[in-house]
Amino acid sequence: MNFPSKTIENAVEQLSRFPGIGKKTALRMTLFLLKDKPELVHQMTQAMEDLKTKVKYCSNCGNVSDADICSICTSVNRNKKLICVVKDFQDIISIENTGQYTGMYHVLGGVISPIDGIGPEEINIDTLLKRVEADGVEELVFALSATMEGDTTAFYISRKLEHTQVKISAISRGIAVGGELEYADEITLGRSILNRVPYSSGR
Amino acid sequence: MNFPSKTIENAVEQLSRFPGIGKKTALRMTLFLLKDKPELVHQMTQAMEDLKTKVKYCSNCGNVSDADICSICTSVNRNKKLICVVKDFQDIISIENTGQYTGMYHVLGGVISPIDGIGPEEINIDTLLKRVEADGVEELVFALSATMEGDTTAFYISRKLEHTQVKISAISRGIAVGGELEYADEITLGRSILNRVPYSSGR
Repeated sequence: MNFPSKTIENAVEQLSRFPGIGKKTALRMTLFLLKDKPELVHQMTQAMEDLKTKVKYCSNCGNVSDADICSICTSVNRNKKLICVVKDFQDIISIENTGQYTGMYHVLGGVISPIDGIGPEEINIDTLLKRVEADGVEELVFALSATMEGDTTAFYISRKLEHTQVKISAISRGIAVGGELEYADEITLGRSILNRVPYSSGR
Repeated sequence: MNFPSKTIENAVEQLSRFPGIGKKTALRMTLFLLKDKPELVHQMTQAMEDLKTKVKYCSNCGNVSDADICSICTSVNRNKKLICVVKDFQDIISIENTGQYTGMYHVLGGVISPIDGIGPEEINIDTLLKRVEADGVEELVFALSATMEGDTTAFYISRKLEHTQVKISAISRGIAVGGELEYADEITLGRSILNRVPYSSGR
């Protein structure tokens, strides 16, 4: 693409760094900014810069937060005896949006992956084990990806808690709600049969 | 959607102002920025702010430009006797990307639309007529939308040049290259028959 101005070319270049945003969409975004009011463009860039200066990470669970302790950890309405273990803070956003979970979270910040040089010490497992002991946690729920790395991480943590009374569970895998059997992959379908649940017509 | 931080919520809100960007894409963009290096985020916001401070409009044709006169108007390789009349500077980007046009441009900045209170004085018609006279222009090509407003604007300008020798043309309308006849709308198909061109197997 040819651009009539280096400034426009540069803006298109920069905006197409966003994941899933190609040159054409970046050009449409650039033309929108060109016609937008300067104060509104400034509001947008300020909101983007704020992400780098104002967002903190909760010192308890690792979630993103505006304060030192996040709103989930300070909430009095949540079950402090139940911790959901996730890889990344965006997993928390996904789970929170289901409205089905009322416990706490713990962000590992990664999963064990020897091939990438990530061992148990590189992710927040120690702090999790300390929380489990200090807060008298009764159940851990693993919400990690069903990959070799996710499974290894869950296995490592469960071994570390073997001597305790903590109940350990994992989110269920199976056919998506509304999903067709014939389009499901064999591993998922196989697991959904192994992990079958009692039938209840009310659900 | 619930967000763990007001700062993140604000960034998602701001980024979803872009045309065609919904809340989910804006969240993905926000998470990308959260993980991006601060200096790279700053480069991006700077490029966006530059659009409001550095981009100028060519005093000759109205195209966007980094200088007072745009690169098309200063080019020695372009035909100064041919002017393509467009509504907006982004039309120039589209036409330039075809690589098929080597003349000059004139940006009207709008089209005549009495219902929106836009008369011939509100758009850059006077400067176009002056250019036609001053530069000894031989041909005008209208590249305006095939709407009532676009047609009215072309008609108004052509009447203003009735007494001159300037040749006036318009971009051709017809079935898109690779388009199927059965999916073409009747107006386009009708026009493509009226404006039929001599058959040439070489094209």
